[in-house]
Amino acid sequence: MDVNAQFELSKEYLEKLKNAIDGDDKDFIKTTMDGVNHADISSVLEEFNSADSKFVIDLLDVEVGANIISDLDDDTQKSFLKEFDSVEIAKFIDYLDSDDSADILNELPLKARQEVISKIENQEKTANILELLRYEEDSAGGLMAKEMIRANINWTVVQCIEEIRRQAGNVQKIYSVYVVDNKDKLLGRVSLKRIILADDNKKIADIYEDDIASVETFMDEEEVASIMRKYDLEAVPVVNVHGKLVGRITIDDIVDVITELAEQERQLMSGISEDVEEDDSLWVSARARLPWLVIGLAGGILAAKVMGFFEEAIKSVTAMAFFVPLIMATGGNVGIQSSSIIVQSLANKSVFEENTFKRLLKALLVAIINGAVLGAVVFITSYLLIDNDIRLAIVVSTSLVSVVLLASFTGTLTPLVLDKMGINPALASGPFITTANDLLGLGVYFIIFYVLY
Amino acid sequence: MDVNAQFELSKEYLEKLKNAIDGDDKDFIKTTMDGVNHADISSVLEEFNSADSKFVIDLLDVEVGANIISDLDDDTQKSFLKEFDSVEIAKFIDYLDSDDSADILNELPLKARQEVISKIENQEKTANILELLRYEEDSAGGLMAKEMIRANINWTVVQCIEEIRRQAGNVQKIYSVYVVDNKDKLLGRVSLKRIILADDNKKIADIYEDDIASVETFMDEEEVASIMRKYDLEAVPVVNVHGKLVGRITIDDIVDVITELAEQERQLMSGISEDVEEDDSLWVSARARLPWLVIGLAGGILAAKVMGFFEEAIKSVTAMAFFVPLIMATGGNVGIQSSSIIVQSLANKSVFEENTFKRLLKALLVAIINGAVLGAVVFITSYLLIDNDIRLAIVVSTSLVSVVLLASFTGTLTPLVLDKMGINPALASGPFITTANDLLGLGVYFIIFYVLY
Repeated sequence: MDVNAQFELSKEYLEKLKNAIDGDDKDFIKTTMDGVNHADISSVLEEFNSADSKFVIDLLDVEVGANIISDLDDDTQKSFLKEFDSVEIAKFIDYLDSDDSADILNELPLKARQEVISKIENQEKTANILELLRYEEDSAGGLMAKEMIRANINWTVVQCIEEIRRQAGNVQKIYSVYVVDNKDKLLGRVSLKRIILADDNKKIADIYEDDIASVETFMDEEEVASIMRKYDLEAVPVVNVHGKLVGRITIDDIVDVITELAEQERQLMSGISEDVEEDDSLWVSARARLPWLVIGLAGGILAAKVMGFFEEAIKSVTAMAFFVPLIMATGGNVGIQSSSIIVQSLANKSVFEENTFKRLLKALLVAIINGAVLGAVVFITSYLLIDNDIRLAIVVSTSLVSVVLLASFTGTLTPLVLDKMGINPALASGPFITTANDLLGLGVYFIIFYVLY
Repeated sequence: MDVNAQFELSKEYLEKLKNAIDGDDKDFIKTTMDGVNHADISSVLEEFNSADSKFVIDLLDVEVGANIISDLDDDTQKSFLKEFDSVEIAKFIDYLDSDDSADILNELPLKARQEVISKIENQEKTANILELLRYEEDSAGGLMAKEMIRANINWTVVQCIEEIRRQAGNVQKIYSVYVVDNKDKLLGRVSLKRIILADDNKKIADIYEDDIASVETFMDEEEVASIMRKYDLEAVPVVNVHGKLVGRITIDDIVDVITELAEQERQLMSGISEDVEEDDSLWVSARARLPWLVIGLAGGILAAKVMGFFEEAIKSVTAMAFFVPLIMATGGNVGIQSSSIIVQSLANKSVFEENTFKRLLKALLVAIINGAVLGAVVFITSYLLIDNDIRLAIVVSTSLVSVVLLASFTGTLTPLVLDKMGINPALASGPFITTANDLLGLGVYFIIFYVLY
């Protein structure tokens, strides 16, 4: 196969494949999928239902099938796995790394999980998987694989190469050999490049780097991601609380983590309450959107109720109602901007965090600048364009400035508080907080109107 | 240094360092920074101004200084570079890979850039950098480094190892050796693992993998990222239009790309118009937020103007004004949800894109479900809670359903159109579109009121 000849993923192929599945044309499937990268086959099968996909996977090598299933996104994987019995899943697991195996087992109901585990033949793998299942899925322990090359510090280079040879089948990608002492405590690493260039009789002790980054099993995946990003690592060793080497996290898994976190945040910010994809069913799509819309609706009803209390005021100075959208929208906008800046700086956590007071002070100063500009603009335009009522112009611009200040304050504080409580601070740019800010703005406007007009 | 002993990045250290800089205590700086990872020193220096940082960098090894500068984010890097003259920058570049060198040169004004290039001593590096500067910064060509190991297909393993030895100083991280023919056409790769395990006299031709992914120089960084993510690559070779191997992109650069794109999107979604950080100056922070706020304000003024046309209607049926926030907020919410789903699926581009008609149809069906639910809720609550006016309840719920349908439509279509025009579709969840949706909703409400009431 030519180096650039990627598998032709065309709609035509999809149709032909569908026909082949329906017509039981096994030869077509086997021939066209021969030598194709499993990631490409996964993309194809994401377009088919679980039963059709099982039909295809059954025709392929078990190893290819195992990798295809491991490639799928969580939801699709879950529904695919229902098509396979525990013996089949156990066979797939034979071909997968411990971390991918644990991910698959995590998608199974508890009983099915036990059954599959009891059917895995390789006892070392079983032990590894059982260990991994103990960790939180989003911790370093839950992300790591047990497969890696470790070398004792007293070994020579040639002993190290023998170990690589022995493990070659188990460890797909070897970036470094991790160096441990007799008690398995992590001491450092030797890159493959150094092993290639070193004399065979050299001691590992003489060529290893001792100044390397490592992570602990309990560390949160976001923290692992930020360490790997900071030090440009392709793999990071994982140690337990005693400093013993227990696993390794590779960058491909962290790339997935970073991508998923960004997607999650986009969904939070846009008020979608479930992990949905465009190709989900109508019902799932509708259901994922309803909660925010209902919250927004409740906010709207509440706003209507509040305005109802001021019915007389609106009747006598109708123009005051004209500015309700302006006040509310500005409050919402300022709130999202402020919280988004904080969310961003929380995501790039550094040790030099500003303290909360300083942050609020700065937010307030920015708000004063922007509030002054906006207040002036709205004072002039509302007076000239809408209603030549100077008292109303004063009320509107005063309210606007107050709302800008208030929304900056809540927008800055909310993500900080959520973060302290262990809740994803991106929620602060989401529906609930936005609706609350809107109502706050409305309340301020009516109170100021009541006082000043 | 112990394997886990990371550099102590404390506020105390920052203060001591500040005192050392002010008091010209060079010993303190040299001693405390000895052996510290450059990424950690970069984090420290991001807290200092350019002049103080130069003072520190001048005390360190040129290689460490070069890496520190390369680590900095673009803005900080730009202001740091102003402190150094062209000879100093050329010296830093001596220690950096071609891609990092090109990134630094891209931060310099054209004249300074020419000056620095003329002072780089290594002619091969100069040629490499000049080549890289020709590519768009956000294309595969702009991301790649020229440093990599290439082996001719006719070589033996031992010749390949000699090449690795020869290039060991130039290429920091070697994951694979790329295999080319006599005309430098990329044929495949050999992993370091395979080189270690192969017999020295084996031919490269017998052990290389020919079925590998590669990217072309003109490919967009997002596309490169999605290929590396799909195939779990730690590095990908870059070829020109003739299939010749011209460079290599490593995953650490792609991790940065993914992170930056996510940040950019967050800023777009939250209506911040410049790339700001929390620690930017007051003025920069205020300025970055103003454009959206002013757009929002203009939208608000326009809304007020529209409502002004209906002053009489509002005077006679004041309660109709109560529902303006509800209608507008729901329109905005639905619009953001719809566009965000499309933005997400555009980001995970697959060849099996739905066509626009199917997408709109689906969006419409989801909108019908949600519109029906919300319409029913608002019909009942508005009648019972706010104003026992059945005609108004009909107007409000009809308007709400229309707005949900309309906002789903524009929310779905806008990112698709923006994408076709080559504009970042995430903009569709941003300020301008949201404001437009708000106004559309308001218009629909008043028209329906006018027709039905």
